[in-house]
Amino acid sequence: MTRWYEDIHSGQKLSLGDHTFTLEEIVKYNLQYDNQYFHTDPELAKHSHFGGIIASGWHTALIGQRKLVDGLFAEEARLKALGEEPGLSGPSPGINKMSFVTPVKPGDTISFELSVTDKRPSKSLPGWGLLFNNMKAVNQRGELVYSADYVAFSKLRDFKPTLKQRIGIWMARAFSG
Amino acid sequence: MTRWYEDIHSGQKLSLGDHTFTLEEIVKYNLQYDNQYFHTDPELAKHSHFGGIIASGWHTALIGQRKLVDGLFAEEARLKALGEEPGLSGPSPGINKMSFVTPVKPGDTISFELSVTDKRPSKSLPGWGLLFNNMKAVNQRGELVYSADYVAFSKLRDFKPTLKQRIGIWMARAFSG
Repeated sequence: MTRWYEDIHSGQKLSLGDHTFTLEEIVKYNLQYDNQYFHTDPELAKHSHFGGIIASGWHTALIGQRKLVDGLFAEEARLKALGEEPGLSGPSPGINKMSFVTPVKPGDTISFELSVTDKRPSKSLPGWGLLFNNMKAVNQRGELVYSADYVAFSKLRDFKPTLKQRIGIWMARAFSG
Repeated sequence: MTRWYEDIHSGQKLSLGDHTFTLEEIVKYNLQYDNQYFHTDPELAKHSHFGGIIASGWHTALIGQRKLVDGLFAEEARLKALGEEPGLSGPSPGINKMSFVTPVKPGDTISFELSVTDKRPSKSLPGWGLLFNNMKAVNQRGELVYSADYVAFSKLRDFKPTLKQRIGIWMARAFSG
C-alpha cells in the first residue's frame, strides 16, 4: 500500500476493482506470452482438459498487478486530498505462492482485492519494512480463481538512521551500479 | 517438459535461450502492466532505489514463460524428428515461490533454464503426474536475476484407468462447464 509502514496493519484490505476477460484479449495476450493451444485456439481448445479456451494464470496475475498499481495511485490521491502525506512503496523481492485455482474463461468478470497479512522491519534495507500481502481474485460467481502472496518493501515514516546505518546507505549508493 | 511423465526425471535441464531487455520494451510493457515510475520514467527513476529504470519482475517472469512454451515446442519437434511420440503437458496449478533477486536493467541479456526438481503422480487428476520445475534466469554477468518454482501437470503414457477412475473422468467431463 502507499501508506507509511507505521500506518499499515494486518487485516487492512484494498479493493482493486474488476476486469472482464474477453476472448479477443485472452487470445491476443497469449499469442504474445503463453502460446499454448488451450490459451490461443478456440477450436483445438475444445479437446483440452477444460473443454474450451481459458486465460493463462499469468495473464490474471498481470491484470492483478496493474489493478494493484492503479489502486495504490488512487489511494495516494485519496490521502493527498485529505491533506495527508502518502507513504512510499518500494520494489518487491518476490511472490511466496501463486495459485491458479479456478480457470478464467472468456466473458468472466474478475474482482481483485489486496489484504495485508503481516509486516516486519527489513533486515537488509534500513529505513524500510517488509509487507506481506495477499492478492485474491474471484469471478462473478464468487469462486476464487487466483491467489498470490506478495512480498513488498514499504518505507518507514519515522526512520532515523544510526551512524553505522548512514555509512551503510552511503556505501550501498556509491557501489550500486 | 513435453515428454511423457515416465520419461521425466529430477535433474533434467532444458536450456531456453536468452532475451535482451531494451529500454523501449521495458517502458512499453510497464505502461501497460506495471506502471510504477521506476519501471516507466527514465528521469524520475534516477531518484529511485536502483538509480535508474529496471524491468518489472513480472516482465522477466513472462518472458520466461514464453521462452518455456517455445522450448517445449522445440523439444516436441526434436522428438518427432527422432520418430518418437512427444508427451503432453497440461495446465499449471501455480507457482510455489518466485524471487526477483537482481534487478534487470535496460541492455541486459537474460538466459533462461528450466530444471526438473521433483515429480509425483497427481492425486486429483487420474492419468496425470505433477512436475516440480525450477525456472532460473541469469544475466550476462552470470548473476541470478530470477528464480521460480513451477508446478505443472504432465500426462502419463502408460495410464490404464480403473473402472472407478473411468467413471470419475466421465463425470468430470459431463459436469465441467
